[in-house]
Amino acid sequence: MIVCIVRNFAAAVAWEAGKPLVIEEVEVAPPQAMEVRVKILFTSLCHTDVYFWEAKGQTPVFPRIFGHEAAGIVESVGEGVTELKPGDHVLPVFTGECKECRHCKSEESNMCDLLRINTERGVMLNDGKSRFSINGKPIYHFVGTSTFSEYTVIHVGCVAKINPEAPLDKVCVLSCGISTGLGATINVAKPGKGSTVAIFGLGAVGLAAAEGARIAGASRIIGIDLNPNRFEDAKKFGVTEFLNPKDYDKPIQQVIAEMTDGGVDRSVECTGNFNAMISAFECVHDGWGVAVLVGVPSRDDAFKTHPMNVLNERTLKGTFFGNFKPRTDLPSVVEMYMNKELEVEKFITHQVTFSEINKAFDLMLSGAGLRCIIRMDG
Amino acid sequence: MIVCIVRNFAAAVAWEAGKPLVIEEVEVAPPQAMEVRVKILFTSLCHTDVYFWEAKGQTPVFPRIFGHEAAGIVESVGEGVTELKPGDHVLPVFTGECKECRHCKSEESNMCDLLRINTERGVMLNDGKSRFSINGKPIYHFVGTSTFSEYTVIHVGCVAKINPEAPLDKVCVLSCGISTGLGATINVAKPGKGSTVAIFGLGAVGLAAAEGARIAGASRIIGIDLNPNRFEDAKKFGVTEFLNPKDYDKPIQQVIAEMTDGGVDRSVECTGNFNAMISAFECVHDGWGVAVLVGVPSRDDAFKTHPMNVLNERTLKGTFFGNFKPRTDLPSVVEMYMNKELEVEKFITHQVTFSEINKAFDLMLSGAGLRCIIRMDG
Repeated sequence: MIVCIVRNFAAAVAWEAGKPLVIEEVEVAPPQAMEVRVKILFTSLCHTDVYFWEAKGQTPVFPRIFGHEAAGIVESVGEGVTELKPGDHVLPVFTGECKECRHCKSEESNMCDLLRINTERGVMLNDGKSRFSINGKPIYHFVGTSTFSEYTVIHVGCVAKINPEAPLDKVCVLSCGISTGLGATINVAKPGKGSTVAIFGLGAVGLAAAEGARIAGASRIIGIDLNPNRFEDAKKFGVTEFLNPKDYDKPIQQVIAEMTDGGVDRSVECTGNFNAMISAFECVHDGWGVAVLVGVPSRDDAFKTHPMNVLNERTLKGTFFGNFKPRTDLPSVVEMYMNKELEVEKFITHQVTFSEINKAFDLMLSGAGLRCIIRMDG
Repeated sequence: MIVCIVRNFAAAVAWEAGKPLVIEEVEVAPPQAMEVRVKILFTSLCHTDVYFWEAKGQTPVFPRIFGHEAAGIVESVGEGVTELKPGDHVLPVFTGECKECRHCKSEESNMCDLLRINTERGVMLNDGKSRFSINGKPIYHFVGTSTFSEYTVIHVGCVAKINPEAPLDKVCVLSCGISTGLGATINVAKPGKGSTVAIFGLGAVGLAAAEGARIAGASRIIGIDLNPNRFEDAKKFGVTEFLNPKDYDKPIQQVIAEMTDGGVDRSVECTGNFNAMISAFECVHDGWGVAVLVGVPSRDDAFKTHPMNVLNERTLKGTFFGNFKPRTDLPSVVEMYMNKELEVEKFITHQVTFSEINKAFDLMLSGAGLRCIIRMDG
């Protein structure tokens, strides 16, 4: 018999856009059909949390519990859940894998029809309601994960079961940004040994893309960023050369082409800036170059290039969550860490306790460091 | 001992842009180092000949001998030529394969650095001079082939040796347009069995792309063209459905998405029109759709799309000559015909004798038929 009762836990509630989170006692309802309740042990802060917390230009959904990069342990499971049981170590994921739709059945896609990221929905799919409340008033979910809470309820399709020996305070960062950048390179750009790779944007996602290029055996990894301070840190992720577009009078794609006898073999764009997207495409070599777009634009503008740049046998691809299928593939990313193939420690630059969660926001807003781990027991 | 002497042959000379060709007696010099002299038996007319003969907007190079889609027999070879000998059956190709450059050594590219198509050069690489002359006055080459001549001199890297049993009056059409469209589908778009494919433009190249989709086992092949008369013929090439953008008030990519539950699996753009390129990209399904651009634009304009169309895991690729390496791959395309896998007869809608060559231009300018074979012995 599975006993599922409403319990009160601490959660960091965002009552309004842009205002500090408040740790509140929140009622967390039991998981319904195809849902699991997870005890979150570690969560980290990602730009997407901050972007939707600031709610500039989107439909604001408040009060809300943010958080989507995390690791925890299953506490209870709802009806119909057979793949997970209490005690399983898991990573919640902001997008899901129902295993039934055309996307899940396609080898090429991870954009599940049922559980694809939805930033505007603040409720669970099963009944269209929130599992969080304070005195009967709903507190809304964020991308189906809401990990800034001691306990959260998640659709089973958005939970990856991982090796129970993996240290959750490290692998929690694999549930979003790091996998996104890593997968963009190893699953989509697929640079060969000895190849040249350009990485646009040296934040956590871009550095994870560089880490992917390093793992793939690229011989030259050119990092491009407007902030020259990032180069020193980027070296730890395999970046061999650094370019700041501000230092040149000509387009950076032309500088890259001159440095590389016609262009790099692969490029990965992790800024979401339109000009960087165009540069990332135009800096790859004709004949075989592949450019992969990762960064999501915040403005409504067009990607533009002369068709001859395409016709000369360049490829432009987009990726979402590094083309990883959350449930199927994420466990193997954790194994890459366990096998010491992938280093994650270097992405973790700060740690705070749960009661200090607003410090993590301050750190990100000031551009300091890469990932700040929030310990839920603190 | 190889005896190479200057000989006089008949060639169709374009004295001026847009004026009827004139059959003249032309001196054809012997092949120099890495060149071969080929007796042309059959040639056909391709849009590219007409485009550069009209010379609207390009640097005009006249007098010139056009022609690049052809089949013939090697008559003599120059110094250093070891792969070909007199008597070999060959297809001349407008682009080449030196087998030494980075492109030739890359498995992914066919855009040879040395012998890539060059429409402005009217001379041979070895000495920067033409092999054709009349009373000592040079007549210029076209894309290194100039097949509107009983004999022509070609760089060995632009000559594919084929099965001597292949009927040259049929396989001559494989040296340009048909291979371009076929390869765009089978080498680049790579539709799976049972997939849906959209083909933009139902001329010879587009129909060859459709033929590729038929060979690959696509279950739905949607042809898009502004000329409704093309649908009846297109059925012979596997096209199952026809769309005329003029019949709809909404963008054709939207019509296609509605017909196909979100988009086709693959699309191939063979018109060179900018709007068709955008439609071809935006009509492929998110998650796995691949759009391949083949058509070369004549205007200076940009390919534009919203980056989210890319980020949702669509792929945009360009191709040149269907990604076939001329010397390495073209013999196997001829074998596809010999094995009855590929049908070429249906592309050949007209035949004229060499003396009637201007009729072939008239046919193409009036949009009649697909390919007109010019018999050099007539």
